Amino acid sequence: MKLIEMNREQLSEFKKKVQSDYDEFKSRGLSLDMSRGKPCAEQLDLSMPLLNALVSDSDIKDGAGTDCRNYGILDGIKEAKELFAEILGVKPEEVIVGGNSSLSLMYDTLMRLMVFGTLGNTPWCKEEKIKFLCPAPGYDRHFAITEKLGMELVTVPMTKDGPDMDIVEKLVADKTVKGIWCVPMYSNPEGTTYSDETVKRLASMKTAAPDFRIFWDNAYCIHHLSDTPDVLLNIMDECRKNGTEDRVYMFTSTSKVSFSGAGVSAMAASEKNIADIKKTLTVQTIGYDKMNQLRHIRFFKDFDGVKAHMKKHAEILAPRFKAVLDALEKEIAPLGIGEWNSPNGGYFISFNTMDGCAKRVVELCKEAGVVLTGAGATFPYGKDPADRNIRIAPTYPSVDELEKAVELFCICVKLASAEKLLG
Amino acid sequence: MKLIEMNREQLSEFKKKVQSDYDEFKSRGLSLDMSRGKPCAEQLDLSMPLLNALVSDSDIKDGAGTDCRNYGILDGIKEAKELFAEILGVKPEEVIVGGNSSLSLMYDTLMRLMVFGTLGNTPWCKEEKIKFLCPAPGYDRHFAITEKLGMELVTVPMTKDGPDMDIVEKLVADKTVKGIWCVPMYSNPEGTTYSDETVKRLASMKTAAPDFRIFWDNAYCIHHLSDTPDVLLNIMDECRKNGTEDRVYMFTSTSKVSFSGAGVSAMAASEKNIADIKKTLTVQTIGYDKMNQLRHIRFFKDFDGVKAHMKKHAEILAPRFKAVLDALEKEIAPLGIGEWNSPNGGYFISFNTMDGCAKRVVELCKEAGVVLTGAGATFPYGKDPADRNIRIAPTYPSVDELEKAVELFCICVKLASAEKLLG
Repeated sequence: MKLIEMNREQLSEFKKKVQSDYDEFKSRGLSLDMSRGKPCAEQLDLSMPLLNALVSDSDIKDGAGTDCRNYGILDGIKEAKELFAEILGVKPEEVIVGGNSSLSLMYDTLMRLMVFGTLGNTPWCKEEKIKFLCPAPGYDRHFAITEKLGMELVTVPMTKDGPDMDIVEKLVADKTVKGIWCVPMYSNPEGTTYSDETVKRLASMKTAAPDFRIFWDNAYCIHHLSDTPDVLLNIMDECRKNGTEDRVYMFTSTSKVSFSGAGVSAMAASEKNIADIKKTLTVQTIGYDKMNQLRHIRFFKDFDGVKAHMKKHAEILAPRFKAVLDALEKEIAPLGIGEWNSPNGGYFISFNTMDGCAKRVVELCKEAGVVLTGAGATFPYGKDPADRNIRIAPTYPSVDELEKAVELFCICVKLASAEKLLG
Repeated sequence: MKLIEMNREQLSEFKKKVQSDYDEFKSRGLSLDMSRGKPCAEQLDLSMPLLNALVSDSDIKDGAGTDCRNYGILDGIKEAKELFAEILGVKPEEVIVGGNSSLSLMYDTLMRLMVFGTLGNTPWCKEEKIKFLCPAPGYDRHFAITEKLGMELVTVPMTKDGPDMDIVEKLVADKTVKGIWCVPMYSNPEGTTYSDETVKRLASMKTAAPDFRIFWDNAYCIHHLSDTPDVLLNIMDECRKNGTEDRVYMFTSTSKVSFSGAGVSAMAASEKNIADIKKTLTVQTIGYDKMNQLRHIRFFKDFDGVKAHMKKHAEILAPRFKAVLDALEKEIAPLGIGEWNSPNGGYFISFNTMDGCAKRVVELCKEAGVVLTGAGATFPYGKDPADRNIRIAPTYPSVDELEKAVELFCICVKLASAEKLLG
């Protein structure tokens, strides 16, 4: 029976039962952190051979004979540029290989736009006002950068095809709208892969700002969970067809492929953009860590090696996603008090409570020892207007822990929903 | 006989002889790059055990039990903060451990000042005009960052005690003067270590700008060449005495200790500054490469380990510096056509030709196959008003190569000087 169909008496009875389940759980003294999309130790273990990928004198030179221990090479060793070009679907000369964090490549890119502008346009810090489009639910760390930069964050609703393009197309007619955050494949948190039409419209839409930029964070482009993975249209190709190839900056990393804190990041952009970026990059650094780039190349060898490696990740992650989805299906679906996605890849399950219950669910979970991503975090300024979205990150805990955590989660959803309906 | 004491006939004869030496050299087809302060392979080899410092499951956790492969820890693992605190003479809580490049820590720091300002002061990009003090000869990459940011670079002459403090004290009474570049120990390129008085005056001087900042790039603080190393007064201690501890940002790295391209960098500042920096750093990145920090800690163990390691560097470098200095003493000193320093540490020998000869010397060397740092590079905007300073970087070539290169260098100095005197 759906909770909404219960009369007050039935609801009270339901709540009483759930409250007792909750109290029992609370007494167990759980302590679990499901707040961030962190790989588990088992996943990290897959990359332990990285540590032995470079050991002796014969391991220190790249294919061109450059001693990777020394200074030099601004944009990454050739082999790393080639690998990331393949992953992102661009040309090697459109790639800059970075340090351990694609987030800081995005931050750096925005800071350059603020201070220097790009391709002859006014630096953004000299503009009166700047707006940035934030498809939501989305990634809190994206929103945090543009918020910190003092931009006005404009929420764009997500659809099953990606950001609502009717709304995006209207918004970009405003010349103060300078960019959009996109996680185009297995989006954070909903696991949505943008439809071909969405990609085409992003590539072809008319923007009032000549320096409008798409931040295409393809963090999960190879993070499939099923044997029938989603397919994402190549935005750079679409942009080229429309002569808008300067519009997009692409980002990815091996943070969830090798080591989250010690992987290799990369960005890609049109050759014109890359040349513009390098003018600043050359004063910023002499070069990123080439030894770590080489280490990754020696370990993965090539794109096929990376793909084979990702299958092992999927094997570890699939049971974790299943544990959560099974419990939600069993405990929540019959009551009609929540909706969620069943993603084909990525790192999250996005759960929507009844309106106005998300904060309470997160609070109840926390009090019983399970930390979830803060309610609202998936929206600009941390404010979910419907107070309903919760990002579940099932990758880090063990399946056992996860089963306990999701059991508690379901109890908390039930309790918060009953509280809400009882008023 | 000094060149300046020769009559025209003697000079012509001298030039003829030197020209013939030069032509002979040119025909040998040398190809040597002495343009940058790069460690030689022998130096890099000292750190090869780094590659085997982390190999198995038992090597992946820091002292606090954190899995360094995963996300987290914004400001560096505890052991790394402690080591750099000791190296820089500050408290661990005043340290942020970064990625492979202290240059990018400096760039990031300036970018933050541009976009966000610091401690409640106006962001620098909102200021009409900003001036930055550049003690010269100095480090071209420092000057390049502030030039790129559109600041006016103000040259401050270097003395044997550091920047001319009479001039600095006058200049900082101008509130558009926002900072100064300092390489306080074994300065690039002159090898000067700031005197106690200079450090005290920098710490105590009255600055018109409340957000005036000293960029204290202590790149060579442990890079001694002799057994009687220079001693630098601790500027943070001096600042504390004067209540000006927010004035200084300190930087260093292991770039010339372990691997130049794959070392670990760090910065230090007052706790107030560090708190302010972290507000932005936390949106910039989830954390720097902790595995590389841990790798360095396991290899060096502690500050004593680092010091012992630096003695091995000195053993490799001392003969290289000697080769250059001996040749200059023998070939140039008797002719009175140049002045240079004999540094106690660092990476360079700074050579001053007769006025107006530096560009010509660099050009002559290049034509004969030896690339030096561009003449003028040690001055703001690449313009040496007297056209006399040349930075010699003796670390990278072998002693054999260096002997040839410096032989050529001396010939070029002689030739350029004779050309100059003959008019």
